[in-house]
Amino acid sequence: MSVEKLAAKPPPKVSHRGRTAAPIASSNADSEEVLEFEPFGLMPRGPLPLNEFLDITNVDMLRGKNDVNKPQHNSQMYANDSLIVRRGQEFQIKVTFDRPYKPTKDQFAVEFVIGGSPQFNKGTYIPVFVTKDRQSTWGGRMVDSTDSVVTVGITPAADCIVGKWRIYVAVMTPYGIRRTKSDESREVYILFNPWVAADSVFLDDYNERLECVLNEEGVIYHGAFDDISERPWNFGQFDYGVLDACLFILDKAAMPITNRGDPVKVTRIASAMMNSRDDDGVLVGNWGGDYTYGVAPTAWTGSTEILLQYASSKMPVCYAQCWVYAAVFNTFLRCLGIPGRIVTNFFSAHDNNGDLRTDIILDGNGKIDKIRTKDSIWNYHCWNESYMSRPDLPPGFGGWQVVDATPQETSDGMYRCGPASVQAIKHGHICFPFDARFVFAEVNSDVVFHSRNRDGTLTVVKVNTSHVGRLVLTKAPGRDARRDITDNYKFPEGSPEERTVLEKAEEYGSEHEKFTPPKGDVELEILLVEVRLGDSFELKLEFKNTSDQARTVNMYISGNVVFYTGVTSSEFLFANHEVTLNALTARTEVIKVPSKDYMRKLVEQANLHFIATGKVKENGQIVSAMRVIPLHIPRLSLEVSGLAKVSEKMLVIVKFTNSFKFNLEDVFLRVEGPGVMPPTIKHYSMITAGSSLTWTETFYPRRAGQTRLMASLDCRALRQVYGQVDLTVEP
Amino acid sequence: MSVEKLAAKPPPKVSHRGRTAAPIASSNADSEEVLEFEPFGLMPRGPLPLNEFLDITNVDMLRGKNDVNKPQHNSQMYANDSLIVRRGQEFQIKVTFDRPYKPTKDQFAVEFVIGGSPQFNKGTYIPVFVTKDRQSTWGGRMVDSTDSVVTVGITPAADCIVGKWRIYVAVMTPYGIRRTKSDESREVYILFNPWVAADSVFLDDYNERLECVLNEEGVIYHGAFDDISERPWNFGQFDYGVLDACLFILDKAAMPITNRGDPVKVTRIASAMMNSRDDDGVLVGNWGGDYTYGVAPTAWTGSTEILLQYASSKMPVCYAQCWVYAAVFNTFLRCLGIPGRIVTNFFSAHDNNGDLRTDIILDGNGKIDKIRTKDSIWNYHCWNESYMSRPDLPPGFGGWQVVDATPQETSDGMYRCGPASVQAIKHGHICFPFDARFVFAEVNSDVVFHSRNRDGTLTVVKVNTSHVGRLVLTKAPGRDARRDITDNYKFPEGSPEERTVLEKAEEYGSEHEKFTPPKGDVELEILLVEVRLGDSFELKLEFKNTSDQARTVNMYISGNVVFYTGVTSSEFLFANHEVTLNALTARTEVIKVPSKDYMRKLVEQANLHFIATGKVKENGQIVSAMRVIPLHIPRLSLEVSGLAKVSEKMLVIVKFTNSFKFNLEDVFLRVEGPGVMPPTIKHYSMITAGSSLTWTETFYPRRAGQTRLMASLDCRALRQVYGQVDLTVEP
Repeated sequence: MSVEKLAAKPPPKVSHRGRTAAPIASSNADSEEVLEFEPFGLMPRGPLPLNEFLDITNVDMLRGKNDVNKPQHNSQMYANDSLIVRRGQEFQIKVTFDRPYKPTKDQFAVEFVIGGSPQFNKGTYIPVFVTKDRQSTWGGRMVDSTDSVVTVGITPAADCIVGKWRIYVAVMTPYGIRRTKSDESREVYILFNPWVAADSVFLDDYNERLECVLNEEGVIYHGAFDDISERPWNFGQFDYGVLDACLFILDKAAMPITNRGDPVKVTRIASAMMNSRDDDGVLVGNWGGDYTYGVAPTAWTGSTEILLQYASSKMPVCYAQCWVYAAVFNTFLRCLGIPGRIVTNFFSAHDNNGDLRTDIILDGNGKIDKIRTKDSIWNYHCWNESYMSRPDLPPGFGGWQVVDATPQETSDGMYRCGPASVQAIKHGHICFPFDARFVFAEVNSDVVFHSRNRDGTLTVVKVNTSHVGRLVLTKAPGRDARRDITDNYKFPEGSPEERTVLEKAEEYGSEHEKFTPPKGDVELEILLVEVRLGDSFELKLEFKNTSDQARTVNMYISGNVVFYTGVTSSEFLFANHEVTLNALTARTEVIKVPSKDYMRKLVEQANLHFIATGKVKENGQIVSAMRVIPLHIPRLSLEVSGLAKVSEKMLVIVKFTNSFKFNLEDVFLRVEGPGVMPPTIKHYSMITAGSSLTWTETFYPRRAGQTRLMASLDCRALRQVYGQVDLTVEP
Repeated sequence: MSVEKLAAKPPPKVSHRGRTAAPIASSNADSEEVLEFEPFGLMPRGPLPLNEFLDITNVDMLRGKNDVNKPQHNSQMYANDSLIVRRGQEFQIKVTFDRPYKPTKDQFAVEFVIGGSPQFNKGTYIPVFVTKDRQSTWGGRMVDSTDSVVTVGITPAADCIVGKWRIYVAVMTPYGIRRTKSDESREVYILFNPWVAADSVFLDDYNERLECVLNEEGVIYHGAFDDISERPWNFGQFDYGVLDACLFILDKAAMPITNRGDPVKVTRIASAMMNSRDDDGVLVGNWGGDYTYGVAPTAWTGSTEILLQYASSKMPVCYAQCWVYAAVFNTFLRCLGIPGRIVTNFFSAHDNNGDLRTDIILDGNGKIDKIRTKDSIWNYHCWNESYMSRPDLPPGFGGWQVVDATPQETSDGMYRCGPASVQAIKHGHICFPFDARFVFAEVNSDVVFHSRNRDGTLTVVKVNTSHVGRLVLTKAPGRDARRDITDNYKFPEGSPEERTVLEKAEEYGSEHEKFTPPKGDVELEILLVEVRLGDSFELKLEFKNTSDQARTVNMYISGNVVFYTGVTSSEFLFANHEVTLNALTARTEVIKVPSKDYMRKLVEQANLHFIATGKVKENGQIVSAMRVIPLHIPRLSLEVSGLAKVSEKMLVIVKFTNSFKFNLEDVFLRVEGPGVMPPTIKHYSMITAGSSLTWTETFYPRRAGQTRLMASLDCRALRQVYGQVDLTVEP
């Protein structure tokens, strides 16, 4: 009897039978019709004498933009006709009966239902009563009763399930319950509420709340910590279809409905779902440079296009790199009412499982051994912070939480990260879920230089403890300015608190390299230089000899085109210098870098990375310096014309000049703006060297107020060309 | 320009290019040839004058069963010709050179390499030197040097990577390194070492170490807490091919090689890989009763067959339920040297995301509402404990850790659980990773009875705080006896410590139902009765009236055939009794249960579940009682005959009588025994009612010592028929 034979056929689809009493409700899109008449036990014969009881002739959700609910709940910006409210805060509906309501005699309830198989004890079926003698988990009160019209005030519990609820009005009769028919116009979206203290996403700062929940215009920082570039982004959380797309993401994850009131669980699921790994999530990552079958990560200008495409195709969207993940995740957070922001960590340790070490291997002469150096430090990495209390942790770790949707190659094998308490990271309490250890390493790792011996062993020659996590930035609330939040993540370099925190983290098994550097007397720095893409420039190496003797340094200088992940694409410069330094002097070496050397090797993010390492002849000291030089990219020019008024025709004119000596082929331009213009794309098969383009596009503002148009230009030879223009739309 | 069009084609396979400098080594099966001669820089012209340096003529791994290594490393039982040692403890190899070794002049190293792209700084390339002036991460010493033969003692670091290493002997010459050729006979498996204090899996108890690492014979408890049944199991961790299968599981998970020294990470990965969900892991779960395309979970007698089939087919094996997951996981743990044991938790709360509540809904009359009651309590659930320190947690949470491979339907969406510190669970520190909250709920949930009101709301009427986690059992070390380890998981019911722990857990957001029960005066118990499968029996309900007035109880008694998951398959008994109780009296009601009522509705695990609920007329008190009655199954009889000596022919005779009134069709018998007999299967198309079978099978003991043969009989109409016989094999 062969064992193999038994297992030859594919297994049948496994059902929940025998395993659970019923499948777990995990889709907001599911709905079960509620009975229009639900009888109590035995019924009298003949027609029921129901006409003495209330009948409902109309239910008005007061869902207009000028009705009471939306402005009070900060939800009037959503391009969505349904009622949208925030939990823990009262909203009103108007019920019209067939005759005047008699409080002493008539009994009715407003019932809220979400998902399939709604149940009272699961919090998916909530009847709300207006009479004082009935306890409800949600607040209910009679606001007004005039003739046959009653206005009911309803306060959803501050920890209720977030999503799309259906509403029924139910009248109790002695024979049973009489209900309104199901009706799409009576659906209500209930969101998280950062305005209410009882909600676990409550954010007590007025300006931050406006920025991190209601602002659709984003700025994402990249480049180098001392030469920062910016990308505009349209989060579009209020755009038509985006709210439904965000709920679809949770359905696609089959997240149990009952968990959808907990921001810890919602953000954790979302961090897994933003990337396509494991779970057919929203975005496919691609760092390879070939984006033929999708949109280049650098080409996107906003989240709307991505989310709508995902919700309609139900398939992952191509392609993303870290800032695209972070931007779409930010839309998700703000759309559901969880305060969210994007942060950029300059020099981010990566893919290392929470080790506090990035290894760089030098050969016997002090030159980097590229084959054996497998770790990389990302020039920058973007992730999200979301604001919430953490009842699952001891007190003190609520507030901003890191969530990261960029798929990491971790041992846990799961492409998700967080929520990890920023406070826990700062204080080294890295044992707390979720993934605090990993984020701690991203901002605190050491760069360890090893020298390789002949027999294959390595000797530590230098440790740089301040390179990684050099600067953490986010956009300031209410204005287009950078805000340095490095000190949210760590104590100042070299402070006694910093030392204590690193020791605390070591208690949890994250060990730093113990290394006392030999006392060196030669210092080296590569000076910053601002370079426009296509320009030749001079690289300056500043040497200082602090000893009272002459020193000779045998230097290797390597210039590489690198991805923003720090991975080298190709080397365009390699030089070997012997530098002689007199006692107690400084000296600057200049290396010319012609544009043709790097231009033909460029990859999309256009960062040049220089490493200089060498050995002092007299004492064997290893000197080294690194410098990322971002190439400044030309910008798009944007102008608007026309009367800036809601529903009036306007024009945007996008201009670009190809000032390079090469043609740009297969060029995509994108423009969009929150509340004014949906994502719009234009394709040019060629922009010849030296020529200019002018693209004029019509739009009709949908909403009054301050807003912005953001545009990008993208082609294989030139990426990251952005531009923007602000405008104020009159009502 | 259509957005959809851009995404229409499937995305190309995403490479690591641009993302990481090199793919992460994640397969033990990968190997890279090491150079036989690795030159140092420039070479002299002409043939190298290498003959003055050592050449290696032989490397003896001392891997025989009677050589020094295996007995000292407790690895002689593995049916594997390679050297198998445990880390943190010295083993020896013998190197023969072409001429006598000169300590002052000759320099050589024993190099250890694992996985692809071995690297010194990643711990995947380890050169070991015997001279004192060279520091090694692993210990090396010259044990003996006689003429041209040297015996080298090597002590792998106590935290080194666990898996299959390759060994090279390398001789240093001024021109380069000369190495032995790669050779399969020089592979060495390095395992975890619970015998050594420096290893994080060190277990200080001699008897527990023998049981939880070296014992292949297991007993798995099931049934009911007060009527416990046993299953024998052959873990087979030393069987031919099992060690390689366990390493294959980690390769299949693409677990980075560098993490494979950490038992926390290894067990977490394994808990995900034991089930097929997400990752094509080892076993497909099936609770549905239809096992046509695989082996019924009840039919397996050991882990070997499952692991070998998985490693050869590389496809999940059908089918498992909780004890199969736990048993195969236990084999994995013991095989790699991590102390492991199986525990059974009687009345295990499940599938509830760490909520401390299981809801049972009664209608207005006190009868269970089966449609609305969606939660279930598993009659029992099996998981594993593994022993290790937890450097990732604050001090005090090392020791036994819960790991559970049965796929749960949790919000985290990942089918894995643990390691969760048993100590943390006992003390309510449920914020610590991994999944302590979930296991805490499995042993501490309340059973909350709700009464459903006419308008759909629910009122709590009774809370049972002692039902769940009633008893936690494991096998005692060194003997076939049960060991009650409930107090490892929780303080005694009703103790002040228990109260404190539940409050502690509430601080982390796991709230208990707050409920003060109305003072009741009627008590009800369903008495235990032992029933053989196929017998009619009497169910006894004992009522006690502690009041000084008469009481009338309107009772509903429901008898159900249930899966061990507590999910009802079908109801075979429903009775409605009115019971009148005089003041201060007890009274027993008897209900007859004819065998034909339940026999035709049986599902595989043959548990009958009775629930009695009712309402006291006089005061509205809800009384309720539950009882699981496991049906006792006939056993297989096993006898052995022949001379019990290694390699001598022996016979096992398996006998079974079908004492039922029905035929058994399509019957599978299995028998196996550690070190004596591989899994052997026999098929009978029919065993008619009343008939007997005798199956005689030959076997040749492979190994001396105490051992056991275990057998099962399985068919659709009758499952869980087990039998065993002990024997002692002489050398």
